[in-house]
Amino acid sequence: MQPHHDGSPLHVSNQAPVLGDTVLVRVRIPQSWGGVDAVRTRSNPNHEPRFSDAHVIASRDGWDWWEAPIFVENPIHGYRFLISRSDGEKVWVNATGTHSIETLDAEDFKLVTYPAAPPWVAETVLYQVFPDRFARSAAADERPTPDWAIPAIWSDPVDDVPPGRSQQFYGGDLDGVTEHLDHLQRLGANMIYLTPVFPGRSNHRYDASSFAEVDPLLGGDEALIRLVEAAHERGIRVIGDLTSNHCGDGHEWFRAAFGNPDAPESEFFYWLNDEHTEYVSWLGVPSLPKFNWNSAELRRRFIEGPDSVVGRWLAAPYGLDGWRIDVANMTGRYLDQDRNELVRRTVRATMLEVNPDTILLGESTNDAASDFQGDAWHGAMTYTNFTRPVWGWLSLADRESSYFGLPFGTIPLYTGRQFFEAHQQFTAGFPWRTRLGTMNALDTHDTPRFLTNARPGAVPVAFGLSVTPPGIPVVFAGDEFGLTGADGEASRTPIPWGTEHREAAGSVDLYARLIRLRRSHPALNGGGMRWLHVGDDVLVFVREGAHESVLVLAARADATVTLDAAAIAGVEAAMPLVGEAGLEAGGGAVRLTATGPTFAAWLLPGVQLPEFGVVAGGSGGEDVAGQV
Amino acid sequence: MQPHHDGSPLHVSNQAPVLGDTVLVRVRIPQSWGGVDAVRTRSNPNHEPRFSDAHVIASRDGWDWWEAPIFVENPIHGYRFLISRSDGEKVWVNATGTHSIETLDAEDFKLVTYPAAPPWVAETVLYQVFPDRFARSAAADERPTPDWAIPAIWSDPVDDVPPGRSQQFYGGDLDGVTEHLDHLQRLGANMIYLTPVFPGRSNHRYDASSFAEVDPLLGGDEALIRLVEAAHERGIRVIGDLTSNHCGDGHEWFRAAFGNPDAPESEFFYWLNDEHTEYVSWLGVPSLPKFNWNSAELRRRFIEGPDSVVGRWLAAPYGLDGWRIDVANMTGRYLDQDRNELVRRTVRATMLEVNPDTILLGESTNDAASDFQGDAWHGAMTYTNFTRPVWGWLSLADRESSYFGLPFGTIPLYTGRQFFEAHQQFTAGFPWRTRLGTMNALDTHDTPRFLTNARPGAVPVAFGLSVTPPGIPVVFAGDEFGLTGADGEASRTPIPWGTEHREAAGSVDLYARLIRLRRSHPALNGGGMRWLHVGDDVLVFVREGAHESVLVLAARADATVTLDAAAIAGVEAAMPLVGEAGLEAGGGAVRLTATGPTFAAWLLPGVQLPEFGVVAGGSGGEDVAGQV
Repeated sequence: MQPHHDGSPLHVSNQAPVLGDTVLVRVRIPQSWGGVDAVRTRSNPNHEPRFSDAHVIASRDGWDWWEAPIFVENPIHGYRFLISRSDGEKVWVNATGTHSIETLDAEDFKLVTYPAAPPWVAETVLYQVFPDRFARSAAADERPTPDWAIPAIWSDPVDDVPPGRSQQFYGGDLDGVTEHLDHLQRLGANMIYLTPVFPGRSNHRYDASSFAEVDPLLGGDEALIRLVEAAHERGIRVIGDLTSNHCGDGHEWFRAAFGNPDAPESEFFYWLNDEHTEYVSWLGVPSLPKFNWNSAELRRRFIEGPDSVVGRWLAAPYGLDGWRIDVANMTGRYLDQDRNELVRRTVRATMLEVNPDTILLGESTNDAASDFQGDAWHGAMTYTNFTRPVWGWLSLADRESSYFGLPFGTIPLYTGRQFFEAHQQFTAGFPWRTRLGTMNALDTHDTPRFLTNARPGAVPVAFGLSVTPPGIPVVFAGDEFGLTGADGEASRTPIPWGTEHREAAGSVDLYARLIRLRRSHPALNGGGMRWLHVGDDVLVFVREGAHESVLVLAARADATVTLDAAAIAGVEAAMPLVGEAGLEAGGGAVRLTATGPTFAAWLLPGVQLPEFGVVAGGSGGEDVAGQV
Repeated sequence: MQPHHDGSPLHVSNQAPVLGDTVLVRVRIPQSWGGVDAVRTRSNPNHEPRFSDAHVIASRDGWDWWEAPIFVENPIHGYRFLISRSDGEKVWVNATGTHSIETLDAEDFKLVTYPAAPPWVAETVLYQVFPDRFARSAAADERPTPDWAIPAIWSDPVDDVPPGRSQQFYGGDLDGVTEHLDHLQRLGANMIYLTPVFPGRSNHRYDASSFAEVDPLLGGDEALIRLVEAAHERGIRVIGDLTSNHCGDGHEWFRAAFGNPDAPESEFFYWLNDEHTEYVSWLGVPSLPKFNWNSAELRRRFIEGPDSVVGRWLAAPYGLDGWRIDVANMTGRYLDQDRNELVRRTVRATMLEVNPDTILLGESTNDAASDFQGDAWHGAMTYTNFTRPVWGWLSLADRESSYFGLPFGTIPLYTGRQFFEAHQQFTAGFPWRTRLGTMNALDTHDTPRFLTNARPGAVPVAFGLSVTPPGIPVVFAGDEFGLTGADGEASRTPIPWGTEHREAAGSVDLYARLIRLRRSHPALNGGGMRWLHVGDDVLVFVREGAHESVLVLAARADATVTLDAAAIAGVEAAMPLVGEAGLEAGGGAVRLTATGPTFAAWLLPGVQLPEFGVVAGGSGGEDVAGQV
């Protein structure tokens, strides 16, 4: 057993502090550690260490709980704990665990004073829809095929070779989505993420030709309004997808600027010749000219204020509940220029102005931590901390895979230990609130579908791991139908409607059951996250809250785990929630057994602690009185 | 044996690239690894991964050397290597070593396009002088004791309790330094770092009352000019110490502004009341008012351009060779404001304008990496990557120590493994050039003296570790006399002149011998750094260059290390340079033996590789041609 702290309400008195607040933080230390002389927090305001002393506020179930005040001095206020054991050992506790040597600032726990996300962000189960492939309403039959498109019928296989790759056109539309909201309710998803709905010259529409209207091929603005209204009636939110890094070369702004250095839109792009006919584009793809965010006019039209693109789709009559931002990581970055912070903060400020009850997700496919410190993005669409580690742990050997652009050839296989280390490493840099808003996707429209390379029986384990740790569970539409696809093109499969009541019914029910688990247990939304066991084939952790906790076991093969009962108070009273696994408590130990691939969860009593006291204005801050 | 890469000229074709350059990088992979299918670099321009392919350019001495081009697209261009082994394993190589899981961006190797440091920065051996305690010239006897001071005679013990703590005044002066340049030459130090020489109201002078003149108590401007000239004649550089975070409350700017909201200097500080009589100060110490760097006028007077404080002392007639900046980490940071980057870049720009052949060091006592990416500071005065790890490895148990402000009570003891991990962790975030410019200090005027708590026989081991890895060796004046001091006050001991020829002669000679080792071997200045063995009691590494390499062993107790001879080509021809340790090569193995605390180094042949080819303008950059 090891000391533990995380950013959840069990350990932190204030989830939305402001500068100058004093926040109380708690760390639990196992009594089996023997004597502890002192516990301190170490903050780092203005990059200069500052310490505060902790004292014991509760001793129960084999743990001492220590509490200390932290005066919040910077907008991102890092802290760690320092434990002096009576045997002389000094132990640091930070977001990557316990350490006998000093630790990096980047691994500190963090208090954040930027405006917090709406509370429902942490309770979101996201359903990703790629409109061309989701469903066709009857109206779709009336629409002509656009000039750039290669028409396909719903049962055609996906053509993942150019030109079909981006031009194969199935004609799904937004009323098609509206017509299948029953399916989403059956699943239990409470948010739809629509990939772009603005017009473009491709089936994916990431090459927007306008941000001013919904593509008529999708039913136009009215279809979006119908979808959002119908979804809201069922308690389902809807978010859109914006390309802030680039637009399409057919975009009205780009067409105005191309070859026309005097156009007001000229400054929206990076030109490589005086005639403004050569330009910088996303990864050199000419159809995707890159935005130059040094332009104040671009910011005004696109992201700044209620009348900007970002603002107007969140307001009536459209009422989107937020945005997922495409290629957020590259946005505003070019050679020695970096306006990324300005762009993301402006986007968020506009959202706060128009409707603060909205979510902002940013795509950053690799190590996302540096941009995701809580100043703008609520969470990341990223693959390092969850998606690829899950693939590594639960894929078959020697599976060829594009692995989202990494030139591995085959998927690197991970042990449970490697899964844990990768997950830990790439989440430790996030503030707690960012972890709660970050997508735990098994796959997306940019990746192979997980099932394609999965070990037999792995889906419940994988999706169980999507719904139980901190983060937003994601269903890429079609996963629940058992679809496969070897890469981010082949995975954009039309949904085989009808099969959800027949051959896919079992799969859909599995997803629904796991989503229900997630949504019905507050501990799985905002509760603490404490790892109990990491083995090659089995992972055990507990999500903890004041009123309930949930114990989780994920195994990819036969496994037996014996834990000290003191590690999990109340485990004798554990009530099975999902899955078939053995749990025997007795003699001070708990024995968990799994036969074959297993996902199981149990309900436990909550962790009862004294309430956090009221912090007097000056108490924790007295030592900086002279400074502030 | 493990693959290896570092930023040295053996592995990187260009130490000072500019944006748009293609740089060639090399990684060595042991042939004992068996088949390797492919080696790639992974860059991260604009936070988006990009890969380039490597090919084998040499195979020798049991290693294959792979080379790949990297197109330098951002000012700090991170990269790592990805090795696909024939057995299917994927291995990442980054600044912390080899890894089987994906790695953090912060641990990437880095190419930097900001102006590079002068080449002599990496060849510097720094001698730190605290002027009040170094030496008195005859002229000092003529000067009256200032009103704030408590006079002491040279043989008095240091009074480390207030008011003596900052007011005890020994009266050392700059001519005193000039008179002892023979001693510095005997040692071999080639740079003097003077703690502040501007007037103040304390013995440490970190509370400057002016930046316009040298303290008359030190001999005034003329004494500084004499010192710099005499030092330069002997090939010794001299740098000063500036407090950019704060000044003294006796400073002319502060006195003009205090209680006078209309003064031009009013905006130089943070005021807490309308009368401008309460203000923000360094850690709440009222005598040290904190600068507000939002003020353009403050920047103009202090740091911007040839007429600023930063500029004028570098020019004739003074000719300082650079600056060490005090509390660089807190500078410009206050609550939600952060002008640190602006300040440090402005300081460096001024230095480039006035005299680019100068060094800029910044104090950042803890994890320094985030501010030290090569945009301004050449190196850090920091304690996490070297000072505290060395203390941990080579201190006696249960030694009480302030440990530079960390509330440990006693110095945490480290094994060799912990030393290595701490050192590795806190250097990995620096670009290679920053490592070369970062101070490897055993102690400073702010810490206990190392010897105070050292294990018997540890000094040669500790100072050996100061002079051999990348970084600037530091002698805090008095260390070479065998002085002790239990904290950063008690360590400010007057130098016992005369003893360097008597009882301290052996100690001074030890320091001189190790400095000579450093200065006479280019491999110890800019050469690569490859760890060969890390044990609890012994560390072995090699610094490598094209013309010579140096093998280093540091042991704190009896130790035997057996290495694969293939790990160190040419080890059969090793020539002892310093220290008494056994080296036996034969049968494909090398056996190193140490009896008791030992520091030893051997000269080895250099690593002969094909020269780096000329890179055609577009070759490595072709894939981004459309983008730039």
